[in-house]
Amino acid sequence: ANTLGLVAVKANGEVLDCMNTLKKDNTGYHLKHLFVGSEGTLGFVTEVAIQCPPKPQSVSLALLGVVDFEHALRTFRLARTMLCEILSSCELMDDNCVTPVVNTLGVRNPLAEYPFYVLIEVSGSNAAHDEEKLNAFLESAMGEGIVSDGTYTNEPSRMQNIWQLRERIAEALLRHGFVYKYDVSLPHDDFYQLIPVLQERLRGTEAQIVSGYGHLGDGNLHLNICSPEFSSELLAQIEPFVFKWISERGGSISAEHGIGFKKTKFLKFSKSDAAIRTMQQIKQLFDPQGILNPYKVLPPE
Amino acid sequence: ANTLGLVAVKANGEVLDCMNTLKKDNTGYHLKHLFVGSEGTLGFVTEVAIQCPPKPQSVSLALLGVVDFEHALRTFRLARTMLCEILSSCELMDDNCVTPVVNTLGVRNPLAEYPFYVLIEVSGSNAAHDEEKLNAFLESAMGEGIVSDGTYTNEPSRMQNIWQLRERIAEALLRHGFVYKYDVSLPHDDFYQLIPVLQERLRGTEAQIVSGYGHLGDGNLHLNICSPEFSSELLAQIEPFVFKWISERGGSISAEHGIGFKKTKFLKFSKSDAAIRTMQQIKQLFDPQGILNPYKVLPPE
Repeated sequence: ANTLGLVAVKANGEVLDCMNTLKKDNTGYHLKHLFVGSEGTLGFVTEVAIQCPPKPQSVSLALLGVVDFEHALRTFRLARTMLCEILSSCELMDDNCVTPVVNTLGVRNPLAEYPFYVLIEVSGSNAAHDEEKLNAFLESAMGEGIVSDGTYTNEPSRMQNIWQLRERIAEALLRHGFVYKYDVSLPHDDFYQLIPVLQERLRGTEAQIVSGYGHLGDGNLHLNICSPEFSSELLAQIEPFVFKWISERGGSISAEHGIGFKKTKFLKFSKSDAAIRTMQQIKQLFDPQGILNPYKVLPPE
Repeated sequence: ANTLGLVAVKANGEVLDCMNTLKKDNTGYHLKHLFVGSEGTLGFVTEVAIQCPPKPQSVSLALLGVVDFEHALRTFRLARTMLCEILSSCELMDDNCVTPVVNTLGVRNPLAEYPFYVLIEVSGSNAAHDEEKLNAFLESAMGEGIVSDGTYTNEPSRMQNIWQLRERIAEALLRHGFVYKYDVSLPHDDFYQLIPVLQERLRGTEAQIVSGYGHLGDGNLHLNICSPEFSSELLAQIEPFVFKWISERGGSISAEHGIGFKKTKFLKFSKSDAAIRTMQQIKQLFDPQGILNPYKVLPPE
């Protein structure tokens, strides 16, 4: 949505100039979007214009402890209503994620232990207004019993500490051996349900930690499964089960990271047969000899 | 940017299911964007999912008088900085647009006459905060002499009156006879420059009013030229001059309304030859017999 224009070189060497710095342009087909997310399989992007919002004057961060996922979702919904135009992040972390960050990396958790944590960031142009909105939100959230405990700060070093609890999860989990990582989108009501389903399914296998965290506001879950070392038996328990489960709920098997070459055979769980055939026709049109980033994104025909 | 997914029927009757209600989905090529803005030439859209933001709790509107376009642009830039997350509209109107609305339709202008008017709308979740931000903005804008006069309100009937000054321009200009209408995008520094250039160029012709208004925040200008009746000589003075002038400044010859069948020969002023060739190839792929909305968007090959 923030890519205004780009220039790409096609497989035949032709320079396809779709450069633009305008917010609105409704002339012809919007070709730039074909290149965004195509992982270099349709052309080599050499220039891009991106719309940048103004840097916010004020940023504050709250870390909240909640008793279950339902309360986490209610926290998000209340934040969307009460913080509205200043809500800039709403992240979820379960205790299976946060505990390794605390125990393995020594990051301090300013709250007591809770099954789930919600991180709320607000960004705005007036610090006093933002703080007042955040206070009103926290009062409601705690008053209604949605949130059990919480802390908030606009002090940079304390904000950094809280963000570490979220941003160092991948690093902490890797210390436990091999990590099977998935980056998926799900409708909000199903957002976390995949984790207990997998915990049940993988009981008795080598899986030691089955954890979920991610961008709750965007519906984007990071599923991480840790085992002492890679096991193809465990992998066979996870895939394609995970992708089928997501597909049945209208989710996406790759929210941010794309398809690459490992997921081409699973693309069908997120895209219809007709859409995949159309993608193959477009690939054929842009790169008839298949020389651009071969074996990526699309399954073999 | 707000279209999450859609279903389209292709020329061969095949249903292309690109439905999705997720904010993030990075699986394969983003086909939905090919249909948005393609004016029915690639497929018949039968379903669409659109992301809707929450309805704002509070809305206020200011009408400001400024002495020239440079001051209008400074007003926008100050608003973007000081009103930031609550700025929901920034519209520009010159006096050639507003005077007909007042004189012909009897809409009241709450300000004295100014060469330019800027309309600023703010929308947010806290009326007191929004009013405080709007007051601080107006104090700065008037204190620094950017704005000469202004009024603001959150009273629905008064807001409706102010919006009429903007929204009934097209209706008022039509009372003067024939209107040559253009809907273009331009970089901010060149946004209004086209109007005096055309006023000079069309001096001595049948053109009676050459006026400009539009979405300043989006860089989207509505150029309107009025003459007592349609004149092909006057049209020849306007086109393709207007499109060339816009093209030389990196603008778009159609910001919102698309290409239709009247502008296909001017598409080259907004899109590169390579881009137009690629669009023709995509049209050929989706609709080889050319049965979907023929003669629209693309020039004949």
